Amino acid sequence: MSDNRGEIGVGMVGHAFMGAVHSQAWRNAHRFFDLPLVPRLAVLGGRDETRAKEAAAKFGWAAVETDWAALVRRDDVQLVDICTPGDSHCDIAVAALEAGKHVLCEKPLANSVAEAERMTAAAEAAAARGVRSMVAFNYRRVPALALARRLVAEGRLGTVRHVRAVYLQDWLSDPESPMTWRLRRDRAGSGSLGDLGAHIVDAAQFVTGDLVTGVSALTETFVRSRPTGDGGTDEVTVDDAALFLARFAGGAIGSFEATRYALGRKNAMRLEVNGSRGSLAFDFESMNELSFFDGDDPADAAGFRRVLVTEADHPYVGGWWPPGHLLGYEHTFVHEVVDLVNAVGAGTDPAPSFADGLRVQRVLAAVEDSAAANAAWQQIPA
Amino acid sequence: MSDNRGEIGVGMVGHAFMGAVHSQAWRNAHRFFDLPLVPRLAVLGGRDETRAKEAAAKFGWAAVETDWAALVRRDDVQLVDICTPGDSHCDIAVAALEAGKHVLCEKPLANSVAEAERMTAAAEAAAARGVRSMVAFNYRRVPALALARRLVAEGRLGTVRHVRAVYLQDWLSDPESPMTWRLRRDRAGSGSLGDLGAHIVDAAQFVTGDLVTGVSALTETFVRSRPTGDGGTDEVTVDDAALFLARFAGGAIGSFEATRYALGRKNAMRLEVNGSRGSLAFDFESMNELSFFDGDDPADAAGFRRVLVTEADHPYVGGWWPPGHLLGYEHTFVHEVVDLVNAVGAGTDPAPSFADGLRVQRVLAAVEDSAAANAAWQQIPA
Amino acid sequence: MSDNRGEIGVGMVGHAFMGAVHSQAWRNAHRFFDLPLVPRLAVLGGRDETRAKEAAAKFGWAAVETDWAALVRRDDVQLVDICTPGDSHCDIAVAALEAGKHVLCEKPLANSVAEAERMTAAAEAAAARGVRSMVAFNYRRVPALALARRLVAEGRLGTVRHVRAVYLQDWLSDPESPMTWRLRRDRAGSGSLGDLGAHIVDAAQFVTGDLVTGVSALTETFVRSRPTGDGGTDEVTVDDAALFLARFAGGAIGSFEATRYALGRKNAMRLEVNGSRGSLAFDFESMNELSFFDGDDPADAAGFRRVLVTEADHPYVGGWWPPGHLLGYEHTFVHEVVDLVNAVGAGTDPAPSFADGLRVQRVLAAVEDSAAANAAWQQIPA
Amino acid sequence: MSDNRGEIGVGMVGHAFMGAVHSQAWRNAHRFFDLPLVPRLAVLGGRDETRAKEAAAKFGWAAVETDWAALVRRDDVQLVDICTPGDSHCDIAVAALEAGKHVLCEKPLANSVAEAERMTAAAEAAAARGVRSMVAFNYRRVPALALARRLVAEGRLGTVRHVRAVYLQDWLSDPESPMTWRLRRDRAGSGSLGDLGAHIVDAAQFVTGDLVTGVSALTETFVRSRPTGDGGTDEVTVDDAALFLARFAGGAIGSFEATRYALGRKNAMRLEVNGSRGSLAFDFESMNELSFFDGDDPADAAGFRRVLVTEADHPYVGGWWPPGHLLGYEHTFVHEVVDLVNAVGAGTDPAPSFADGLRVQRVLAAVEDSAAANAAWQQIPA
Repeated sequence: MSDNRGEIGVGMVGHAFMGAVHSQAWRNAHRFFDLPLVPRLAVLGGRDETRAKEAAAKFGWAAVETDWAALVRRDDVQLVDICTPGDSHCDIAVAALEAGKHVLCEKPLANSVAEAERMTAAAEAAAARGVRSMVAFNYRRVPALALARRLVAEGRLGTVRHVRAVYLQDWLSDPESPMTWRLRRDRAGSGSLGDLGAHIVDAAQFVTGDLVTGVSALTETFVRSRPTGDGGTDEVTVDDAALFLARFAGGAIGSFEATRYALGRKNAMRLEVNGSRGSLAFDFESMNELSFFDGDDPADAAGFRRVLVTEADHPYVGGWWPPGHLLGYEHTFVHEVVDLVNAVGAGTDPAPSFADGLRVQRVLAAVEDSAAANAAWQQIPA
Repeated sequence: MSDNRGEIGVGMVGHAFMGAVHSQAWRNAHRFFDLPLVPRLAVLGGRDETRAKEAAAKFGWAAVETDWAALVRRDDVQLVDICTPGDSHCDIAVAALEAGKHVLCEKPLANSVAEAERMTAAAEAAAARGVRSMVAFNYRRVPALALARRLVAEGRLGTVRHVRAVYLQDWLSDPESPMTWRLRRDRAGSGSLGDLGAHIVDAAQFVTGDLVTGVSALTETFVRSRPTGDGGTDEVTVDDAALFLARFAGGAIGSFEATRYALGRKNAMRLEVNGSRGSLAFDFESMNELSFFDGDDPADAAGFRRVLVTEADHPYVGGWWPPGHLLGYEHTFVHEVVDLVNAVGAGTDPAPSFADGLRVQRVLAAVEDSAAANAAWQQIPA
Repeated sequence: MSDNRGEIGVGMVGHAFMGAVHSQAWRNAHRFFDLPLVPRLAVLGGRDETRAKEAAAKFGWAAVETDWAALVRRDDVQLVDICTPGDSHCDIAVAALEAGKHVLCEKPLANSVAEAERMTAAAEAAAARGVRSMVAFNYRRVPALALARRLVAEGRLGTVRHVRAVYLQDWLSDPESPMTWRLRRDRAGSGSLGDLGAHIVDAAQFVTGDLVTGVSALTETFVRSRPTGDGGTDEVTVDDAALFLARFAGGAIGSFEATRYALGRKNAMRLEVNGSRGSLAFDFESMNELSFFDGDDPADAAGFRRVLVTEADHPYVGGWWPPGHLLGYEHTFVHEVVDLVNAVGAGTDPAPSFADGLRVQRVLAAVEDSAAANAAWQQIPA
Repeated sequence: MSDNRGEIGVGMVGHAFMGAVHSQAWRNAHRFFDLPLVPRLAVLGGRDETRAKEAAAKFGWAAVETDWAALVRRDDVQLVDICTPGDSHCDIAVAALEAGKHVLCEKPLANSVAEAERMTAAAEAAAARGVRSMVAFNYRRVPALALARRLVAEGRLGTVRHVRAVYLQDWLSDPESPMTWRLRRDRAGSGSLGDLGAHIVDAAQFVTGDLVTGVSALTETFVRSRPTGDGGTDEVTVDDAALFLARFAGGAIGSFEATRYALGRKNAMRLEVNGSRGSLAFDFESMNELSFFDGDDPADAAGFRRVLVTEADHPYVGGWWPPGHLLGYEHTFVHEVVDLVNAVGAGTDPAPSFADGLRVQRVLAAVEDSAAANAAWQQIPA
């Protein structure tokens, strides 16, 4: 049956892991949420035409372009979704914004602070013309973390004192696991730090509503070369793990860790926040749950509550299933599309903005500077 | 981009909760799995034309029919998906099978053993003509439960001795929660027993690969009338909770419980199996996990393993995301569609068959008979 | 340094597992709790003098007796603690009560209802003379279960609707595990039913403050003969597992299971209670925790609370350590001694009484009757 | 009954929290373990004679001394147990060692590295004369952590890469919680750092078998003055929380956090270790459990095992109860006494030695130095 809503044409650059999950979000968001515009999967961008066409057929895109610059200029594209490695984010985003296209950009925003600054300037200039931009920190759209943010904003935690954030994976634990672009500084910018650390910095800042003001850090590369698949080996030029201590503007202190060597942890993106009135704990491996300790409970019946974040009045959940019918990883991307398209429809700026992405980038840069300076404290520019 | 695969036209009857989640499965299955036929959402059946059209637009169906008999006869429908309350399953399924249409039927298969027998006979007759049928016990397609079945089949549990199965919800806990068709015997057949108990009987039989041979049961209706929304009240004519003990053909013993009054449990479909060599435990509220105790582990390092069932070689997972990136409730329906369409393509009979659904129905009937006879043991016909 | 409190001389019969843990309780209770009388470990009873003397030296008893009848008559014994197998409970308890000695008797109270009735009559006659008696259902003294009882008594659960109780062990899982007195009907009365089932029946009645009025049951013996250690085998004459459904006087329904074949479960004595206003869940393998769901919590922040039952105002905890410093299995016996000696000092009757033990015995008998009658419902005499 | 073993007379200085739990250990260790010498609770030292006598009566000590120097010299004391605040450890320990008495000293070993060095020198001189000394890091004697050490030592973790250690309490979370000696630098040396941080540094070094070589740290005092109980307030002169990053000699990296402001966490002493072949996780709030991930498990059945550390062949457990019958906090002190008395009997040096305590002290000092120097890296002297 026809749908009376208007459409928004999407051009997406990149069709690997992120491209697959973004496609799923673009295809399905309007089936569950009352969007002002129905996304049309107009063009998929990929350098290899054969592979791009295969991906377009599989994911449901109407056309392909091998040149992202051409994709950005197309009339049937009103929104550009950037799912490429970090080294191309800046050029694509700036070109799209200058062409008047709304932009959704995968995280980390860029491979350097300089690029992120350029992108943020472009986004702010575009915003003045009604063009919207958003960086894709999808974990903000986990209902449990959105609920965490709501509880903090409502004052249920009181003054935040402690933040504990880790993002633990184990896919590099085996030294024979092969080389990939994610282990090359020129493509990925950094290793666990940008890939995983960016998420927990953003999540910590989002949930607390506060900003990191300084860090002390160490990084490590446990396995310095890896097989390339053709019998040779190649040098790993990024961090395998990054650990840092942090201070927040509001007085809280925190610790952060990102690693791909925590054997047995598959996607343990964890956040714990302790305030003067309550505490929160989250683990993405149990993403439908939020642990909440309410300091107002009577002492004899107090304890961390395992809140199953599947009730109709939990963030985003109303669009989906009855209580206890769990959501998964890909739903966070649907929520991202919902928030972005709603903002486009309403003529407002969505969050997280490129400026938010830049703030994360500055923390990552300070971590690298501190690690290079024997853990010396690095203040983050405001 | 075009897809070179052939299509299979689907007609779905019913567009409430089950209709929504089946639509999502039909729309997306071929995006993640290499199906022999691409499902086409041809016709949606619903008695109220306006509401059916709204649902068709929302869920992506091409046309609507207000008469299921017309839907079943349409040339653009090769497969009929039955998502209505239990009282209409038999008529629709038999008509569809006789019209040579493959059938997917929601559980419980029917509201009575007699209907289920008629449906099974129709399915077997149709199968002889290459027409496929399947009953939609979606929990078999939770990767963790499919893995549980695999471990039992591989002998990792040894001889099964104990089964413990509960399905706990709490949405009727409040006596003021309103009347619904699910609480009327004429529509739903039974209450928690058919809605929830059917799932755990099937899951227990599926995972153990064994059949329930007899039961002793009690049922209870805690709240005997409920508000209708128009100021009046209506009588609840089904069980609120059903508990039963069971014996299995292979010598195992088990206990079962289905209730909508377990305050705080939202969708706790739980199964524990203890064998002579290993044990398994599952809870749908943590549906991406399977607990596995391997009795071959050395005593000093033995313990229930929390297996995160998100690895590429876990059942169904290879079609989706990297390890630790969780799946949700709706994915079980995608897997159902995948198995059904693969069977249609391969010309084989999918499982669970209508005969499997009939076996569950016989257990449910025995439970009701036992409950009516003061818990007297009821043997299940083979 | 001397202690100004009076003393109470204890004579304990039996020095195996229960004797060891009771000794620890008698030796230490007054170090942590302000008892009216200091227990003196006067006499240890055991049939083999050499082994009894070794045990007395190890556990700290001042003397031994090989004849329990002599022990019961001694002037330095004011309280008799019965830690023998069930077949001797009745004779010892009645003799002790008739000799004017307070009695603590291990559970199950007896091997038959007839014995339990005789004991209860003796206890009631003795009570009229100021002689106290108590049956040793130690799980009532787990702080978490005592807290559970308190929450139910305070109305925090509302009307109780569901009880789910299992007691799972696995030490018989291996068919080669040797024969023991616990597997002989003449010594132990029954198998898992009396050993484990008795605990969960008492716990369920204690926590709910309600009584079981009827049951439907099945029992099973998985391994019918076992090695005796001398190259032969001996017949197992008790149940390996017992499952039963139950109704409570107040309208709740419940399921119970006791087994020693739940591979991987070491001492999983679990209880879940769902009421109209709240729910509780407990597992002895995490005995310092109580899960509590408060139905009054706002829906968006509701969830089972993991209450760490180690706060000063939790039952019994004030005598011990700071919050989070866990207690263990043996502490439940210390609490038992505390409650008993306090009752003796105050001249009141402690709980659970022999009448409470008799009520449990009647449930166990009804379970055996039902199991023998093909699960036919058995009403429990009031 | 008499016990044929010889005795060892114990003099204990201090009778607050640590005195109570040490008394329990001295009274009971020989009841469960086959010690070469039976501890005799000879003398309790306390400055206030009335309170010391009350404590001696309560805990079971034969005599009191108000002057620790006199206690140390008594002929009926062969072992001195130091349970006072840190500012007196050095003087008492050195005097006792010089008097030829074995010494058990509570942690942290001292309030400064200089004191710890003086104590270690005294201990090493005394050891040459057959006098034994041990620092009371009781968490080494949690069976789960002793098992963790055993697994690492057996190579089950492979090369250790990551250590994550936190010790979270919440008893200072309320700003109105009163002043105590633990918040004064002159008595306690430091705050959370020495009280809690000392434990996790020792535990991390113990379990990994490795040493911390350098740290970067920050500390914070959230509440700078507290009520004294007489209407006034007093200044808090210690850290409320201490966070630090660390490198280990063997190449591992780690993070540490000690705080008394983690609302809802009562005694969450947690340790996670990731190696190339396996991983371990522990939380004292579930102290009878060790989580173990075995990297050799097949991928489809791998997961963290919840090992219930209550089997007879687990460290220390053989002296206690059957599987699944949990131990508590105080049992770790019993195990400490067992290891110390066994070493005295065998004429060997027990662990952890004063030199081990000094190593921890050096880490704590480096943490304070780093925190004072804006997180600058501090190398730990070997």
